[in-house]
Amino acid sequence: MSLPRLAVSIGDPNGVGPEIALRTHPQIADVCRPYYCVDPEVMAEAASLLGMQLPDDFTMVPLGLPVAIKPGCVTADAGRYSHASFVKAIALTEAGETDAIVTLPIHKEAWMQAGITYKGHTDLLRDHFEQEAIMMLGCSQLYVALFTEHVPLKEVPAKIERNALARFLVDLYRATGFDDMAVLGLNPHAGDNGVLGDEEREIEAAIDLANDTIASKGFKCDGRPFFGPVVPDAAFTPTFRSVHRHIVAMYHDQGLAPLKALYFDESVNISLNLPIIRTSVDHGTAFDIAYRGKARLNSYRNAVDTALRLL
Amino acid sequence: MSLPRLAVSIGDPNGVGPEIALRTHPQIADVCRPYYCVDPEVMAEAASLLGMQLPDDFTMVPLGLPVAIKPGCVTADAGRYSHASFVKAIALTEAGETDAIVTLPIHKEAWMQAGITYKGHTDLLRDHFEQEAIMMLGCSQLYVALFTEHVPLKEVPAKIERNALARFLVDLYRATGFDDMAVLGLNPHAGDNGVLGDEEREIEAAIDLANDTIASKGFKCDGRPFFGPVVPDAAFTPTFRSVHRHIVAMYHDQGLAPLKALYFDESVNISLNLPIIRTSVDHGTAFDIAYRGKARLNSYRNAVDTALRLL
Repeated sequence: MSLPRLAVSIGDPNGVGPEIALRTHPQIADVCRPYYCVDPEVMAEAASLLGMQLPDDFTMVPLGLPVAIKPGCVTADAGRYSHASFVKAIALTEAGETDAIVTLPIHKEAWMQAGITYKGHTDLLRDHFEQEAIMMLGCSQLYVALFTEHVPLKEVPAKIERNALARFLVDLYRATGFDDMAVLGLNPHAGDNGVLGDEEREIEAAIDLANDTIASKGFKCDGRPFFGPVVPDAAFTPTFRSVHRHIVAMYHDQGLAPLKALYFDESVNISLNLPIIRTSVDHGTAFDIAYRGKARLNSYRNAVDTALRLL
Repeated sequence: MSLPRLAVSIGDPNGVGPEIALRTHPQIADVCRPYYCVDPEVMAEAASLLGMQLPDDFTMVPLGLPVAIKPGCVTADAGRYSHASFVKAIALTEAGETDAIVTLPIHKEAWMQAGITYKGHTDLLRDHFEQEAIMMLGCSQLYVALFTEHVPLKEVPAKIERNALARFLVDLYRATGFDDMAVLGLNPHAGDNGVLGDEEREIEAAIDLANDTIASKGFKCDGRPFFGPVVPDAAFTPTFRSVHRHIVAMYHDQGLAPLKALYFDESVNISLNLPIIRTSVDHGTAFDIAYRGKARLNSYRNAVDTALRLL
């Protein structure tokens, strides 16, 4: 039986991506066939900076782009490179040459300097496939899906609208099949019955709408998958998460600050609701430790495992 | 040597307050002299509901208010009662009859039903002493101070203003003496250099202002106590909190969701910047387990210990 083929985008060459790819390759190659979207010259330079050898079976798909590695620096060249690597990984997967994508971290400011206007991988995927990609992060102990992502906090409350949220919830259910998902409120104490804000009324209506839609479409489901609005600072306490492991957060830090407090090393980032499977590490380029032999490998290993499980 | 005297407000009589007071009394009475602000008839009813005896040395300060205990119910009577108990605790402490206050949980909606307009203990203290009380929660592993508290999320961004925040930071430094405090950004990725919001410029300016003020006033301090703005979802990761244990959060859930994810049982609530010392449990009335013998006691024990340490 042939192993699944994974397109690996190398991330920002000035960050920890190349090191993670190199160090994990022996184990990764046992469970899949990785295709690294990177030029051999770039990987050779990365290996030399790390005092490592490039393994013989390290299959690369060249991008034909020159880039000089500047460990820990934000450069337009590196931004352009990590973007090209991701675009190549998408192309390979769309063409059926690979089965899924695993991405290493890019740097948003480097993308900006390179004139790439996307705020991250998920935004680009959303645009490329013209589909509402859903960002979910976590590990088997706790998954968090984000209703809004890279949005200034002041723009979040106006986005809490029942129809948009209900569509998101139905898509999320379709993509995960999770039948027990806690939808968080927006305000402290989930608004305390209106005393501290009223967006919870929209959230309540969205939950009802989504559950009704799921029931009426005859999805295979025991009852109604969504409940809430749940008090945000109660949803991550030990008692709550011992029972409920799937959270829908209204905004980025509401979900990710507690998730990373609890499961930083294990967590991966999953793009749902797309024609292809894409998983990613749950951390950034870690410029402060780039090329110092200190990169953490757990999140990447879990991202590969998660992609293989989803296949 | 005589033991310190603590005024204990009993909290909502329909919640877990009376049970916590009863169960912990034998240990608490070893380290301090607790004065429970509650009528003997109410405690007798609570004890009988719990199948417990009222200890002989359980000193009560009567409120002279009738209330029937309705376990787990929101009632105006119970709201009025928990308010009166807290007011009595303040009065005892201001009169020098007790040395500090420890509060058991009240129910905000019960207060509303009773026509009490404060959103919680801290609000009332702020009004009573006409001083900007600061709410800090946590335990020795991690303390989180809140710049805004019980405010609807949509009103938070407009409150991030350099002068107000700088004043808050200076007061916080004066009250705690902590010389290493991470001030969080407001937006995802702390705004990513303006890509995801710009309130971080106000925060940066406030940090500078506060550090300058502290330096110029000749406080005893090694260098500048505040730094940031720190990326909110990075501030609670294991690596960060192994070094930095004092966080300033811009809003309620930004600080409390991660804190409660990590240290729910241990955490206490401390009111700073007031003429009196007040600590509190870090949980609510827990109506779902009221009078079932399941109340958790750790947070209250830590609240008593913290009050004694602060004295």
